[in-house]
Amino acid sequence: RTLRIGLIPGDGIGREVIPAGRRILEALPSSLNLNFSFVDLDAGFETFQKTGAALPDRTVEVLKKECDGALFGAVSSPTVATKGYSSPIVALRKRLSLYANVRPVKTVSTAASPVDLVIVRENTEDLYVKEEKTYAAPDGTKVAEAIKRISEKASWNIASMAGDIALRRQKIRDQGVDSIHKEPLVTITHKSNVLSQTDGLFRETSRKALAQDKYSSVKVEEQIVDSMVYKLFRQPSDYDVIVAPNLYGDILSDGAAALVGSLGLVPSANVGEGFAIGEPCHGSAPDIQGMGIANPIATLRSVGLMLEFLGEEKAAATIYAAVDKNLVEGKLLTPDMGGKSKTDEVVEDILKML
Amino acid sequence: RTLRIGLIPGDGIGREVIPAGRRILEALPSSLNLNFSFVDLDAGFETFQKTGAALPDRTVEVLKKECDGALFGAVSSPTVATKGYSSPIVALRKRLSLYANVRPVKTVSTAASPVDLVIVRENTEDLYVKEEKTYAAPDGTKVAEAIKRISEKASWNIASMAGDIALRRQKIRDQGVDSIHKEPLVTITHKSNVLSQTDGLFRETSRKALAQDKYSSVKVEEQIVDSMVYKLFRQPSDYDVIVAPNLYGDILSDGAAALVGSLGLVPSANVGEGFAIGEPCHGSAPDIQGMGIANPIATLRSVGLMLEFLGEEKAAATIYAAVDKNLVEGKLLTPDMGGKSKTDEVVEDILKML
Ligand SMILES: CC(C)[C@H](C(=O)O)[C@@H](O)C(=O)O
Ligand SMILES: CC(C)[C@H](C(=O)O)[C@@H](O)C(=O)O
Repeated sequence: RTLRIGLIPGDGIGREVIPAGRRILEALPSSLNLNFSFVDLDAGFETFQKTGAALPDRTVEVLKKECDGALFGAVSSPTVATKGYSSPIVALRKRLSLYANVRPVKTVSTAASPVDLVIVRENTEDLYVKEEKTYAAPDGTKVAEAIKRISEKASWNIASMAGDIALRRQKIRDQGVDSIHKEPLVTITHKSNVLSQTDGLFRETSRKALAQDKYSSVKVEEQIVDSMVYKLFRQPSDYDVIVAPNLYGDILSDGAAALVGSLGLVPSANVGEGFAIGEPCHGSAPDIQGMGIANPIATLRSVGLMLEFLGEEKAAATIYAAVDKNLVEGKLLTPDMGGKSKTDEVVEDILKML
Repeated sequence: RTLRIGLIPGDGIGREVIPAGRRILEALPSSLNLNFSFVDLDAGFETFQKTGAALPDRTVEVLKKECDGALFGAVSSPTVATKGYSSPIVALRKRLSLYANVRPVKTVSTAASPVDLVIVRENTEDLYVKEEKTYAAPDGTKVAEAIKRISEKASWNIASMAGDIALRRQKIRDQGVDSIHKEPLVTITHKSNVLSQTDGLFRETSRKALAQDKYSSVKVEEQIVDSMVYKLFRQPSDYDVIVAPNLYGDILSDGAAALVGSLGLVPSANVGEGFAIGEPCHGSAPDIQGMGIANPIATLRSVGLMLEFLGEEKAAATIYAAVDKNLVEGKLLTPDMGGKSKTDEVVEDILKML
């Protein structure tokens, strides 16, 4: 099987980590019978400054017409309000109907406080519909409003995805893989004590979706989002799969990243029907840009996730195992992990572990 | 001076901690020249079940007409969608124009990882305006929308409050009180990379408010909310005053509570012009209700905060010091803190320290 992969480095350290993603795909063992071709694509703040569009139409078209999947680096946000600029990754998620954002957060086997959870974030609606308006109050001061939209359909889809992932994780555990969890659990996160209609709909629909027969082995719980953040930090090992509307999912995944020591370790996949974009959870990190010390692991794991959602679970497992070996050894680490290694040294080390 | 205080225990452990709040007010040293009278007021889910209103009009009227301040316990949320029920504390904040929710999170001097920050949360708008509607999509499935409203006025007020608090904290440090901070810092939290108009307005207005001459000694920074949660957990000692729109403030304060070991330690005050309601950050905790083991410290500190915002800084400092002594000794602690003491034993101990 040959997969065509779009490479969208974006800004800042996105340009240092996406090449690492390409390298690991090219270095996969030939026994996997996978080949890759690549196409370089533009997006980001620099692209906006050059062309007036943060997400050129060509990028979307090539992804739609030619590609099986893609890797997205990171984009810089303007530091002052900039007319016409709008986040390209948010747009991409919508234009390609990538309805789920899947973010596994996991420590390696030697960790003192083990964490092994996945945040399954709705990826197309909530406040991310970006329908905003500004008007003047009677006294002339400004007021701005944004729409938070939650649909039964998207909530059903994301909760079902969470159920599927919970079952898949259990299957892997049943094959004898070591884990801190014994049973599949999905925790529904919402704020329906304040938002009874929107978050109420998310909660109710998620409950219904997870009540389907096929999920009968999955335990279902709920947490109000503020309490979820608290519990995430107090008892992270309690959680298996957490499903959340878009914005809470965004916040929770950065929070969960803090549990494993560095955002530089946390991958994500933007997933739709038959298409997936791997994307490290970290940003463009202008403070370390160009220094060659960005942690490539979030990207390498995102490559694994992308492959997993394209049906290549064995290739994905190969990548995860190589990354874990590097982390367990703990010799070649980038500065965010307390080490002194360069991006390339970490990549070389992981390629050797394949 | 005699202050009349409304006591609103609410549900669950609210009824176990609010009496402790009354006791500490009654036990304050007579040298402070403060007297208190009390009035018991209803609110909460049980009140809703009995009367059909979670926040009876009488409660609001008595607070407005008779009281100088109040203590609010906690309320239980219905576990299934309940028609007509709506959170009484959210309503109270709006009806009394308590525009700021102030939540200090602080470790005692002996802590290994010191934290000393205040979250200043806008308390009347954002998604808490609770303007929601539900409609059918063309295919018959449900869609719900909520309005997130951000005003220049409320943003200006809350950012100014954050600036004032930063200055006040610095004044206390200048008097020689030990602290991990050297300079006043306000961190503006928002998500303007997605919500350019609403959060953009919050960001811009906060910047302008904090650019007033009187705040010239205050350093001002920004964090995107997801990154703020990450940094809060990685480098909590970096933060002094964090100002945020309503919902982010809600989430951040529960997150910050995790840093000090227990939600049972974290107080809040709902503050308006000349009125303040002290409110522990924890919920009604049905799991431990009636066992007499609720941590009273969040409430006792909330009493201090209420007094602080009613201009009684000396009385407030007396309470904080007594609570800190109990914690530094570490002998009488409730189970959430790893101890075995009952609520009443902790209260007795703290009253002795006054
Ligand atoms: C850059 C930003 C628009 C984005 C988001 O909020 O989704 C990022 O935080 C993420 O989590 O991928
Ligand atoms: C109970 C709930 C409505 C409330 C809120 O969201 O404000 C609580 O979480 C709080 O922080 O006081």
